[in-house]
Amino acid sequence: VIAEIVAIGSEMLTPFRQDTNSLYLTGQLNELGVSVAFKTVVGDHLLQLTSVARTAIERSDIVIFMGGLGPTEDDLTRECVAEALGVELRRDHDLVAAMYKRFAERRISMPENNARQADVIRGADVVPNSRGSAPGQWFQREQNGRPQILILLPGPPHELQRMWEKDILPRLRPLVPPAAIATRVLKTAMLAESAADARTAPIYKKYPNIETTVLAGQGQVEFHLKTTAPTMQEAEAAIEKLAGELQDELGDAVFSTSGESLEEIVGLFLQMRDKKLAVAESCTGGLVAERITSVAGSSRYFLGGAVVYANELKTLFADVPPLLIEAHGAVSREVALALAENIRDICNADIGVGVTGIAGPGGGTEEKPVGLVYIAVSDGQKHEIVERRFLGDRERIRRWASQQALDLVRRMMM
Amino acid sequence: VIAEIVAIGSEMLTPFRQDTNSLYLTGQLNELGVSVAFKTVVGDHLLQLTSVARTAIERSDIVIFMGGLGPTEDDLTRECVAEALGVELRRDHDLVAAMYKRFAERRISMPENNARQADVIRGADVVPNSRGSAPGQWFQREQNGRPQILILLPGPPHELQRMWEKDILPRLRPLVPPAAIATRVLKTAMLAESAADARTAPIYKKYPNIETTVLAGQGQVEFHLKTTAPTMQEAEAAIEKLAGELQDELGDAVFSTSGESLEEIVGLFLQMRDKKLAVAESCTGGLVAERITSVAGSSRYFLGGAVVYANELKTLFADVPPLLIEAHGAVSREVALALAENIRDICNADIGVGVTGIAGPGGGTEEKPVGLVYIAVSDGQKHEIVERRFLGDRERIRRWASQQALDLVRRMMM
Repeated sequence: VIAEIVAIGSEMLTPFRQDTNSLYLTGQLNELGVSVAFKTVVGDHLLQLTSVARTAIERSDIVIFMGGLGPTEDDLTRECVAEALGVELRRDHDLVAAMYKRFAERRISMPENNARQADVIRGADVVPNSRGSAPGQWFQREQNGRPQILILLPGPPHELQRMWEKDILPRLRPLVPPAAIATRVLKTAMLAESAADARTAPIYKKYPNIETTVLAGQGQVEFHLKTTAPTMQEAEAAIEKLAGELQDELGDAVFSTSGESLEEIVGLFLQMRDKKLAVAESCTGGLVAERITSVAGSSRYFLGGAVVYANELKTLFADVPPLLIEAHGAVSREVALALAENIRDICNADIGVGVTGIAGPGGGTEEKPVGLVYIAVSDGQKHEIVERRFLGDRERIRRWASQQALDLVRRMMM
Repeated sequence: VIAEIVAIGSEMLTPFRQDTNSLYLTGQLNELGVSVAFKTVVGDHLLQLTSVARTAIERSDIVIFMGGLGPTEDDLTRECVAEALGVELRRDHDLVAAMYKRFAERRISMPENNARQADVIRGADVVPNSRGSAPGQWFQREQNGRPQILILLPGPPHELQRMWEKDILPRLRPLVPPAAIATRVLKTAMLAESAADARTAPIYKKYPNIETTVLAGQGQVEFHLKTTAPTMQEAEAAIEKLAGELQDELGDAVFSTSGESLEEIVGLFLQMRDKKLAVAESCTGGLVAERITSVAGSSRYFLGGAVVYANELKTLFADVPPLLIEAHGAVSREVALALAENIRDICNADIGVGVTGIAGPGGGTEEKPVGLVYIAVSDGQKHEIVERRFLGDRERIRRWASQQALDLVRRMMM
């Protein structure tokens, strides 16, 4: 089955906007065992849209058009798909009547243009839109001895997704070959992408029937595994086997196998152990606290802490002796540990985290270059201090440093 | 001139990855006065890629292919474009020799496959890749009395962008009709998108020759203006006129007309007035501090502050009397003001910010629902407290609250 997604709208041909619906639709089609072969973006332009529709109809078994179903002159999807199919549009009088009724209820007269939304491709079924005014359409026919399905969906994501789940998916499922699909996501922290791939490629390449996608960024490497099989049992067994081998190789760098984020895992561990956390951050400037508190319910295990950007605040809020800063520098192993231990103490927390470093672009020296970060964690008895030299720009350095801080907390709870 | 961008790579047909190069290339083409009519994504698949190439060559004057230029079996762009053009590939022996030399210098033998990168479409010029091993290609011909240009670029963004700027752009510029393009970006804070659009649409619709794109999200509405004219003077004059009318309408909600972010503007204002800032945040959990410190050089005006998530920390770090919290609740006008005034005092700052609210999804009551946030700012003499009820999920509420906090600081500096 060859599937194609066509996104319609001139705004997606600017440098500012991108089609994101296709990510959702691709995931949905993959769940059905259908891969997407082509994605096209075209503007609100009669000839160009018709040409795109024609090409898609020629080469694909399932074509999903999204956008361009509204009431304005710019909304051309209905006309262009009908033209490409060589069939006519009919105005659906039930739809028109319903529109008049809706406007009448709100005591406003309906703009003439609005009736365009009732134009239906001859032979297509109307798909109701419970979250907006533009209905979708479903057109199905036999073509070269195979079923061909064209689906017209509205562009706004919440309308599109609702229509997909409620009406399109139940109708599409029985028409595609049945397949059981199993997926698994392994997330790791603080591995370099190249090293992670070098270690795991020999393993996952042994499983050509499992699609392994490696996604990396900001101190996190994720392995997305997917396979289809005649039965769910077989699919799950295959995934389980590969996931197990990958976990054996990667060890405790794997922090999640069910989709949780690192901040969620840290929260789960803290709650499980009934521990409270406090942080004192310099170069991350609040990012560690922000990530922890991005999780709903984090007040159960996170007390707060201090953003000690200026050196005076390191002393004021985290009791770091000025002489210690003078002796070792604000960016030092000693200050990181003092931040962690003292913020723990002062806040009456169980675990304290301290971060200090040089996020750049300025402020680096030969001895202490941009990217040098010390991260410490303490539980009052034992502590861990890590020195790292992160590469990249300010944002990247801060993000990696926050990731390292969260990972240290996770490891202390393990 | 009809331009088309073709992104090649199966990973962009998964739910996880999206082509982002096309945003860069669209911006670059727009600068030349060229609009993008079609964007296509296709996988590493011989027949499908050839079909996409054939369609693109039929309908577009400029086609940019990106990706699929590497050495592996999966890299099919060269073959498929040549096939679609109906011309052959030739192996460029200078390129092969250079590759052997590079490998020899590193004392490793070159894999046979690697020579595929020296396959050049007959009639095309080789474009050097200073940041990677896969060269680009430039193919130009007369087609139906008009010049047609096909450009093959590598997929990695830093290779593609460098090649574009260094070799493609200088070569393309003289081939497209000259046009002067003026652009302007107006950014506003804390306006609702619908209200902003309702107020401005009657203005920008008077200028059909200026393309106005309204982008909104997270407490920020941006107006991107673009126009082309025979001379830069005319283009600038038109933009200036519309920008002026929009600013008159939107008043001091406009915080930037040259692209700066709100956190950069706040930083500029603080530096200009030589003021130091400190913050005490509860529900934003560090997000305000994180945004301020995301700007390079923020240590010049930002001291730090406290993340006072637990009530005890509101007292410990910001001296908020427990009785005040008891009397009014932690989420109250009074506590927000105490946070702002006290953190200012304690940190010896000029400006203090306090944020307290209910980010949800739990913790709301009928009286104090999820989304209720108090934001206060004080300079020791005057203060401002704002009560807001933000809609949406936890992330949205926190983001809007941080935006409001930054905007209050900006307004206090005005």
